[in-house]
Formats: sequence, structure tokens, C-alpha cells
Amino acid sequence: MMMSFRPGLQTKTSLATFARTLVSSSTTMAPTATLQLDNMNPCIKKMQYAVRGPLVIRATEIEKELQAGVKKPFDSVIKANIGDAHAMGNKPIVFIRQVLALVTHPPLLESDEFPEDANDRARAILAGCKGGSVGYYSDSPGIEVIRRHVAEYIELRDGMPSGYADWKNIILCAGASESIRGCLKLMTDQSQSKKAGVMIPIPQYPLYSASLAEYNMEQVGYYLVEERGWALDLAELERSYQASKDKCDVKAIVVINPGNPTGQVLSRANIEMVLKFALEKKLFIFADEVYQHNVYAEGSQFHSFKKVMTEMGSPYSSMEVASFMTCSKGYMGECGIRGGYAEVLNMDPDVMAMLQKSISAKLCPTVIGQACMDVVVNPPKEGDPSFSSWKAQVDGVLESLAERAKLVAETLNSIEGITCNPVMGAMYAFPQIHLPKKAIAAAKEAGMAADAFYAFALLEATGICIIPGSGFGQREGTFHFRTTILAQKDVIRSMLGRLGDFHVKFLEEYKD
Amino acid sequence: MMMSFRPGLQTKTSLATFARTLVSSSTTMAPTATLQLDNMNPCIKKMQYAVRGPLVIRATEIEKELQAGVKKPFDSVIKANIGDAHAMGNKPIVFIRQVLALVTHPPLLESDEFPEDANDRARAILAGCKGGSVGYYSDSPGIEVIRRHVAEYIELRDGMPSGYADWKNIILCAGASESIRGCLKLMTDQSQSKKAGVMIPIPQYPLYSASLAEYNMEQVGYYLVEERGWALDLAELERSYQASKDKCDVKAIVVINPGNPTGQVLSRANIEMVLKFALEKKLFIFADEVYQHNVYAEGSQFHSFKKVMTEMGSPYSSMEVASFMTCSKGYMGECGIRGGYAEVLNMDPDVMAMLQKSISAKLCPTVIGQACMDVVVNPPKEGDPSFSSWKAQVDGVLESLAERAKLVAETLNSIEGITCNPVMGAMYAFPQIHLPKKAIAAAKEAGMAADAFYAFALLEATGICIIPGSGFGQREGTFHFRTTILAQKDVIRSMLGRLGDFHVKFLEEYKD
Repeated sequence: MMMSFRPGLQTKTSLATFARTLVSSSTTMAPTATLQLDNMNPCIKKMQYAVRGPLVIRATEIEKELQAGVKKPFDSVIKANIGDAHAMGNKPIVFIRQVLALVTHPPLLESDEFPEDANDRARAILAGCKGGSVGYYSDSPGIEVIRRHVAEYIELRDGMPSGYADWKNIILCAGASESIRGCLKLMTDQSQSKKAGVMIPIPQYPLYSASLAEYNMEQVGYYLVEERGWALDLAELERSYQASKDKCDVKAIVVINPGNPTGQVLSRANIEMVLKFALEKKLFIFADEVYQHNVYAEGSQFHSFKKVMTEMGSPYSSMEVASFMTCSKGYMGECGIRGGYAEVLNMDPDVMAMLQKSISAKLCPTVIGQACMDVVVNPPKEGDPSFSSWKAQVDGVLESLAERAKLVAETLNSIEGITCNPVMGAMYAFPQIHLPKKAIAAAKEAGMAADAFYAFALLEATGICIIPGSGFGQREGTFHFRTTILAQKDVIRSMLGRLGDFHVKFLEEYKD
Repeated sequence: MMMSFRPGLQTKTSLATFARTLVSSSTTMAPTATLQLDNMNPCIKKMQYAVRGPLVIRATEIEKELQAGVKKPFDSVIKANIGDAHAMGNKPIVFIRQVLALVTHPPLLESDEFPEDANDRARAILAGCKGGSVGYYSDSPGIEVIRRHVAEYIELRDGMPSGYADWKNIILCAGASESIRGCLKLMTDQSQSKKAGVMIPIPQYPLYSASLAEYNMEQVGYYLVEERGWALDLAELERSYQASKDKCDVKAIVVINPGNPTGQVLSRANIEMVLKFALEKKLFIFADEVYQHNVYAEGSQFHSFKKVMTEMGSPYSSMEVASFMTCSKGYMGECGIRGGYAEVLNMDPDVMAMLQKSISAKLCPTVIGQACMDVVVNPPKEGDPSFSSWKAQVDGVLESLAERAKLVAETLNSIEGITCNPVMGAMYAFPQIHLPKKAIAAAKEAGMAADAFYAFALLEATGICIIPGSGFGQREGTFHFRTTILAQKDVIRSMLGRLGDFHVKFLEEYKD
């Protein structure tokens, strides 16, 4: 009676008249569309996101050409453009997936398929879900029990006592990007004659430049010092601020630590310096700390902004800082699951209420993503049935990443005309390529940045997809590219071999 | 050597000095915060999302008070504020969860835990994932194989031949809201003196008013006709358009069918009328069709905008329409999973490229949400091992919803001073409450809309959380509320009993 339509239960009727309408509608377009390039949102037109830009689109096309049997001088495309661990053959952490399968299909709790600590984690998460289902809408900032686990994780991470982190300051999100954008968005104000400005490192992760363009905010770039391992420099921060303070209202500074695309790990002194600078200029700090598990260099250590500011005491300890974390990076690499959190410190309570309100219209971040974050912040503990296998897997992943970080930087440095800082952390190398003038001229003629020209040539010749430095920003006259360190060792070796051969030929072709 | 920090492996050191800093930082605030109410984004301040507004916050407080043993005239809070099926005790569809567990933890494919068709679906989805992992970053518009399944579903749904839907027009998203916002955002242009305007039904689902406020766009409301079962009316569309066309640039019209909060199901004639109107005014159509599975009224049927415009032929068949769908509603109610899709028709290809670019900075929608959408559009077919159990579950859910829809409307109509249109579809009733003048005056004195005043009184007296009509919009001088029909039958009966008793007392207290 009542349900006139049910999915999958109807038969497909082929109606010639409709088919005709169809053909005409797919080949003709309304003469002038309502929404056109010249009347659409200009901010969206301006935004660029190089990590998924034209180069990557071309790489995907080439993949399809290879599948279709087109002959190429290579037999596979290597996508070193994006920090996507699983796509590059890195395996999920078993314990994480066990818990996620259990919360997704709770009848598995009754089987003896999984270890007891996985069952326990799943039961605790489900107890936090209304109706005992991950299919419910959680509170917009996430499930309380998971926010509490995040707060405990932060205390443990920073070696601080209970009370150091407040679960009410934790906002769970579908990957760090969502929270970063949510906080950036608070700062724009179209009614002001001066745009809001945000200081970002150059090179930077293009989420920042893209989002600032979208929100009609001013990008205030400060250069990282390549000669000093991509460290931050006070004089440069000051220069950047002074150069922009008249044309925009500088409200915030972004620091990415460990660095993307640079792979640097900031020293404690560097972080103190940023805090002092930000206090003096009254800047809100965006601490992009998504690679906090990815520190490889001997003697290096991850220092959270929160810990450093707390130890510096007043007035630093009451600065406005938002720290971002994700389940997409680290040892877990769960990009597609879309989990993350922001810890928002010392935000004006009225503004915090507005932030909470603004995320409520998006309902909630994926509950399975929240559950994934829960396992990341609350992994098996010594004595738990899964502890030793979990630890072996995590250690194995991080040790292997450390080896690959070293292998990539060393191999790149062995190629003439390429210099690369050590990959201290994160998932990328960002080598400088020294291009001959003729190549730069040829690029100019082709209407491209020289490193984009290089990257397209590399892709067509070798199937290797890297991202040119111009997508991240770099000092005028220098050229770089970003490659991930995520391919398996043998693939990295083959990739760097192909890249080295190409590079030599490229230099030969364009030698001055 | 290299990993100086590992989660969960450190000991928590309690340091008295830090503890002191901590206490001071949690009680004092920087005297003037960088980001304050008076310098933050005014659009965010303006946005309102009633479904998760102050009333719901108070409901959650009351829940905690009950847990803490505070005595109330009721022993539970009933959250009828949000279309969250699982939270109200509705059970997940087993086949969906089996497939999701399998893609999450593929070793389960080797067990004999699940039926073969669930395994097949999981294998097909995993074959579309790089590295065979749902932890990979998919293409921003989603996994190709799932987009293809969506296109096939649309053909089947509308009884149309192959080729009717093009998978390249399908954009997967984390719930329909994400795509709706992504498309709305394309239309704003801060550089113009006239704001972009979008026609939305009144009453409307507050995602629209909230997002229009956030994007600094003008809300152009057209009233649905309560006396005619919340139908759309051409004269009213025209009135609304004419009243706003000078103060804003009206670019689009939103239609929600089946209706939220109204529960109406549009007739085919109504849809044709909208298409003609939109063509004449050159409007982009947002077809919010997330309740397409939820049609209960006898003789009613879901007609997609796409089908109607295709059957109307040229020029209607080449109009710009985006249709939105989700896995949060229907018979599945998988809200927390965050899956959905938009089918974007006849968009200018350059604008479509911009839309694709704009979503790329957000990387990708949750892959598990995509997988959920895959199962929704590609459920078990006759002859498959899971078909009969799947069908029994789906039929059971939809029949039960239809019964509850009837029960809610009939019971509400039996209460003096409440009139309610039949709940033809979707998940809500939107009754009108006839409030005495004294109550309206008392509300005014309390600085509240009269229906908000009523809703707060209801919540405090009975623990029932509904959303006042003012959160959705309504004709001046009329008052309504929205309640979901999702509680289990016995809970609905008890809830409507409590509500009826309250209503009588309320009328008594404020009788003119």
C-alpha cells in the first residue's frame, strides 16, 4: 500500500521516447547556464590545491592509458604525490581494524574472532553511542567518552598530570582538515575593509592557501630557512609580519610540526620563539601537529606547542592555540577513515560557543572515524592480550618509515643537481632541484612554472607523480618538488633510479 | 633510536610546578583574546541551527541531571528533535553492517561468518580501493565503482534506460549536507553589491538558513500551503521572487521532497510547476530528495525532479539541477556513517571543474560512508542469499514507519488546539499549535518566540524535546513544532500521552 517505490525492486523499462530526450539532453546545454564561471564565487575560482591538481589528474589518465594497453616507457604510475600510506601498500594496524569491525557489526562481539581487549574497546565505544549504534548522530564535537580519551592521551603524550587537558576543549572531526578550516573560518570578516591575514610557512601544505583563498583571507607567507634544515627564523617572521600588517589584519600564525612538505622537526627553542613572537603580535596559533608520531631523526623529538607554552608559564600558558591531529598519518595511515581532533586552548568562551554552533549544522563527524581516533589515543597497554602484536606492528611501521626517510634523502642527494635536507619527520622529502636556464626558459615558453614543467616531463617519461615546489611555495628563483617516502623500499629504489636517469637526461637536454 | 615519543608508552609524571601553571591557566584568560565576538566572522554569528540549538542543549543537561539523581516529574528525556533512527532504537540493516565490517577488516572474508553476497559486495568495493584498503584516500568525488552503482540505481529508481544517469555527474559526500553546502557555496559572490539569493521553502530544514547565513547569501522564503497539505503554490513562488528580486540576485530554488519538517510528498504536477517556474526565472534547482525511500501515504509516490524534467523533454531536460541523497534516512538511518551523494545535472562544465576542485582540498569523503552508500544503491537482489532477510527487514522498517506516521498525526489531531497534516513521507510531523494570547504575551515577556516558550515548558515538564516551528520558519502569527516519528510505538504512545496532558494544562494555565 504505502511504499510505492523500493530500491532495487523495480524493473528497468526501456522507453524509446525517453532515450531520445536523453541523448539530446546529454549533448546540448542550456544556451546560457544560470551558474557560470563569470558569475560564480570568485574565491572558489582562486583556490588551488596542488596535491590533487592537474598533474595528478594527468597521472590518473596515464594509469588508464596503461590499462588500455597504450605503450609507455614504463609499466606503472607511482603516485608519490600524496601522503596516502595504504594506497602505497602499507598495511592497516590490525587492532584498529578489529575494533572498527566490532563497532560496525556488534554481533561479532559474540564470536571468538577477536581478542578480548579489542572487544572491550568496542564495547566502551558502543556504550557511548545512543542506541548502541555507530549509525547514530553523535554530538557535533564528538562522543564524550572519546573526547575524554583524547584528553588523557594528551596528558600521557606530554608527560603531564591529570587535569592538564580538558575533554571539553577537544573537538573530534573528519580528518584534521575539517577542524583547521572550521577555525580559520572564524577569523574572516567580509564587512571589514582590511582582510584578515594568516601567517603561513612557505613552503606550506596547500590546504592553508586553498582555504584562505576560499574564505577571502590574506595569506602572509614567512619563509622557512632551507639552509638551516627548514627552521623558523625570528627575523623572517618579523619581516613577513611588517610587510603585511598594513594591507591586512594579521590574526593568526600557522606552524606545521613536523613539517609538511619539508620534513623538519622543530626544536624546542624554535617553538618558544614562535610563542614569544605570537604573544607580542597577539596572534592565534594554529599548531598543525598531525605528524606527531612521525619523528625519525636521531636526537629529534616532538614538542607539542601545548607542552612548551605550559612549561613557559604565564602569560604564554594562556595563549590561544589550536592543535590538530588526525588518524590519517602517524603509524596508522587511516586516511580514508576520516578521523581527527582539534584541541582548542584558551579560546574566548563566546567564540568557542560560536565554533560549536558552526559545526552543529554539519551534524557530526563520522562515528567510525571517531572510533578510529579512539583506538589511536587509547591503544593496547602492556599486559593486554593485543599489546605485543600491536607494538610489533607499530614499531615495524615507524622503523621502516625511518629507514625510508633516510634512503630517500640520501639517494636524492646522490643525484647531481639535487640537494635535499634530511627527512627528520613527517612523510615527505622536499629536495631543491637546480635547473638550467634553458629549462627555465622552455618552461616560461610553455606558460608553466619551471618545476611544474619538470614534474610534467618526469611524469610523462617515467610515470612518477611528484608535486612541484610551486604548489607549496618556495623562495623566488628556487625550484623543488615534494615526494612522499611511503612507497615500499623496492619501489622507492626503482622510483629514485628512474628519477635519477630522467634528471640526468633532463639536465643534458637543457644544459646551458 | 629515532622515535622519541610513542603513544601510550610514556609514564605520566606529576610535576607540581606544571600543576600550578595549569590551575592558573584554566582559571584566567588572556585579558583580551585575539579572537573575540566583536571581531570574528559575523556570518558565523548570524547562523542558527535549531535542530541542535539551546533546547537540545538543555535536554542534554536534563538527561545528566536525571542520571545524577535529580528528581523530575518524568524519568527519561525523549529526543524527538532530530531524525536519528538508531538513537531511537531502530536497528541497523544487517546486510549493510556485514558489508561494512568486511571492508573494514578483510580477513573476515576468509571466515564463514557472513553470506556470500555480502562477501561479494565487500570484494567489489575493496577492488576499487588502492592498496585494497578503506584507509586510502579515494578520489574526491568518490570511488568510481560506487559512483557507477549510484548511476545504475538512479536508472532503476526512475525506470529509465541505461545511459539516463552518468556516473561522472555523481559526487559522493559525507552525508547530503556536505554536498548541499558545496553547491550553495558556488553561488555566493562577496564582490557584488547585490547578494546572491536562494529561494527556500518556509518551513524549511535549517541547514539551508544556516548555510545561507554562513555564505552571506540572501534567504528568499516561499511559504508552503499548510491548508493544502504543505503543497507548493505558483502564486506564492511568484510573490516571493518578486518581493526579493530587487534586493538580491535570485539564483536558485530549494525544494525538499518528501518534505522536512512538513512530511508532504509532492505531486507530479507540483514538480512540473516548479520546473516551469525555475526555467522562466533561470534558477538552479536544489532537489533535496533525501527521504526518497520514505513515502507512506496511500496513493502517494516519489517523483524525482530528474525523472519529471526528463519526461517533460526540452528545454526542461537540460536545466541545472542537483539532487541530493544520503544513507542517514530511508529505511537504513545510518546517520553516523556519513554517506551520501549528489547528482549534478547540466552544470556548466567549467563550473563543474571548479566544484570538483573545491572539494579536493577536503581530500575525500569517508570511504566507509561511500561503502555504505554502495550497499544502499546496490542491495541484495532476488535470488541472492541475503535477499529475503534483507527484504523482510527493509519492509518491516518501512511498514513500521508508516504505522508510526499515521499514529503520530492521528494522535496529535485528537488533542484540542493541535492540528496536524497527514505525515505522507519523511520522518516528521509538523503540527500547528493554537496558543492562547496570554501564552503569547508571557513568551514575549520572556523574550522568546511563543512556540519556543511552549517547547521549553514542554521539555521541563515532560522531558520531551521537540523543535519549535520558529526554528524552521512559519507564517507570522502561527505556531508549530516538529517532532520525529522515530520513537518506538510504545514510546510514541507514552510521549504523545505526556504531550497531550501537558498541552491541556498549558492551555488551562494561559487561557484567555
